[in-house]
Amino acid sequence: MIQAPDSPAAFRAALTAAPSSDVAAIAEAQARNGQLTKPPGALGRLEDLAIWYAGWRSNPRPTIASPQALVFAGNHGVVARGVSAFPAEVTVQMVANFEAGGAAINQLCKSAGADLSVHALELDRPTADFTQGPAMSEAELMAAIGAGWTAVNPDADLLITGEMGIGNTTSAAAIAFALYGGAASDWTGRGTGVDDAGLALKTQVVADGLAANPSAATDGLEALRCLGGRELAAMVGAIAHARVLRIPVILDGFICTAAAAALAKAVPGALDHAVAGHLSAEHAHGPLLTALGKEPLLALGMRLGEGSGAALAIQVLKGALACHSGMATFAEAGVAAG
Amino acid sequence: MIQAPDSPAAFRAALTAAPSSDVAAIAEAQARNGQLTKPPGALGRLEDLAIWYAGWRSNPRPTIASPQALVFAGNHGVVARGVSAFPAEVTVQMVANFEAGGAAINQLCKSAGADLSVHALELDRPTADFTQGPAMSEAELMAAIGAGWTAVNPDADLLITGEMGIGNTTSAAAIAFALYGGAASDWTGRGTGVDDAGLALKTQVVADGLAANPSAATDGLEALRCLGGRELAAMVGAIAHARVLRIPVILDGFICTAAAAALAKAVPGALDHAVAGHLSAEHAHGPLLTALGKEPLLALGMRLGEGSGAALAIQVLKGALACHSGMATFAEAGVAAG
Repeated sequence: MIQAPDSPAAFRAALTAAPSSDVAAIAEAQARNGQLTKPPGALGRLEDLAIWYAGWRSNPRPTIASPQALVFAGNHGVVARGVSAFPAEVTVQMVANFEAGGAAINQLCKSAGADLSVHALELDRPTADFTQGPAMSEAELMAAIGAGWTAVNPDADLLITGEMGIGNTTSAAAIAFALYGGAASDWTGRGTGVDDAGLALKTQVVADGLAANPSAATDGLEALRCLGGRELAAMVGAIAHARVLRIPVILDGFICTAAAAALAKAVPGALDHAVAGHLSAEHAHGPLLTALGKEPLLALGMRLGEGSGAALAIQVLKGALACHSGMATFAEAGVAAG
Repeated sequence: MIQAPDSPAAFRAALTAAPSSDVAAIAEAQARNGQLTKPPGALGRLEDLAIWYAGWRSNPRPTIASPQALVFAGNHGVVARGVSAFPAEVTVQMVANFEAGGAAINQLCKSAGADLSVHALELDRPTADFTQGPAMSEAELMAAIGAGWTAVNPDADLLITGEMGIGNTTSAAAIAFALYGGAASDWTGRGTGVDDAGLALKTQVVADGLAANPSAATDGLEALRCLGGRELAAMVGAIAHARVLRIPVILDGFICTAAAAALAKAVPGALDHAVAGHLSAEHAHGPLLTALGKEPLLALGMRLGEGSGAALAIQVLKGALACHSGMATFAEAGVAAG
């Protein structure tokens, strides 16, 4: 394990120095893929996934044995503005539900054989209301990034990150607005289910957030500090540490992707080890994935967060690797190669 | 087990008498879904899938314990017309590969915990070249349907059907053309990978097939007899028996769906127990699913057959049921329901 960076500069330096994907393993995996008992390309994206994964693991015939799922929870001062259909108490209640095994992410991680841990980040100390100034100080930002960074198991061979935090679609929308511009309404959606008046208010809050924090538009880490929550910063820390450790990542929905986008803006190439697990029903998720150049593996109308879409997508990646690493070649099977 | 029908009339009668989905179980499953610890609708299609499955299993809180995968193989006289990039010998070679555990479907069934069996159907006796007349006699059709029917394990709680048969995208295209009309080119694609000249030839063969068998346009079973292969008829038999036994089905790609379309045309409602597992890269699959009113669960550019897309989709359905049947309710978890 590499120690968590204690400043934005150290964080950038660690990522800039991170190793790339292994081109030799990619070439070997491509060669193997061409010899498997199927018409060329007939497994579609499963083939690309297997080769991508092989490169990051430096293994032309890998399997997934130890996927890790990290769920981070945080509370948001901006909830005081009335942006969510649920009260802030639900964050701590849902953390208890995760710990008791009762949430969707528990079931999906169990199905996928993923090791799930839940990290509640100072729930009794919400971030500041970002319509009044930065949500976090630099020290608070780095503490939250560090919580994510140190939560990564260096022996994991796949990582997904999820979140819980009443109000955090507002935070994610504000970050996307800061990073990519356009109109606040382009990035603001109904979250857990606000009505039309709630959506109008939420859109105004997103616009107010960037107006109160103009520096958020200048850099990904600054956007995260000014507009993020602790759980978003922790996801950034975890995804970044996985990049350094060459652990492939499956991104979850809108909030996870907004955090990832802040990381990609801060350090180019910092998301090369990540694929998009699913397309959320939150309308801004598609444009956000397009901005990142990531095509989702699943599109099932999910919008729960918790890492749920990414957890389901683990099964797609596992299937891809089961085929790639388990199938016979034409020569082994005595099948005519066409 | 209900004995395999020995005539088209008996087949239709068995399906017409088949029980429907259980409306009480559906209502109970819907009620449970509304109480789970998530915002309403936040699991998207997973919620619909779980409720659909609950209805067919008469169990408001079901799980999948015994999925069955059936792969049928057949050979096609129309291959003599040069419609495939692979020689007919590959069918028997791939059956050996399935039996040895080396194919994609073996790996995907293992990942999904599905019990796979492979049924080679008179590979040394291809169906007749359908450009010269019917591919099968009525007796041959019913024998192949019966092979599929009897292969279904009555104790299975989910069924997928797959196929292997050099030339069978041509057969599937001809069936779709007979059932839905339009132009032969609307339904004809590159299959395992024919070039432009091969595609033009294949399209002509599809048109010739319907011209030689005008009765194929009158009925689904007649289309299957005139233009199908034994593996397509066996899939129809298996899917139909599953309907009678109320075992839910996940359809695979273009060839499986063409067979299923023949069944749906023969007996309205005969596919109510089936969902579409994936969208194949074979271009006519999307229009065929649209004609059936089925929205695919996955769209990963796969075009392998064997049941591979359906096998991967088992994981989506398992995830849906894991959430539905495993999650805590708001009351159980002490979470505010918003």
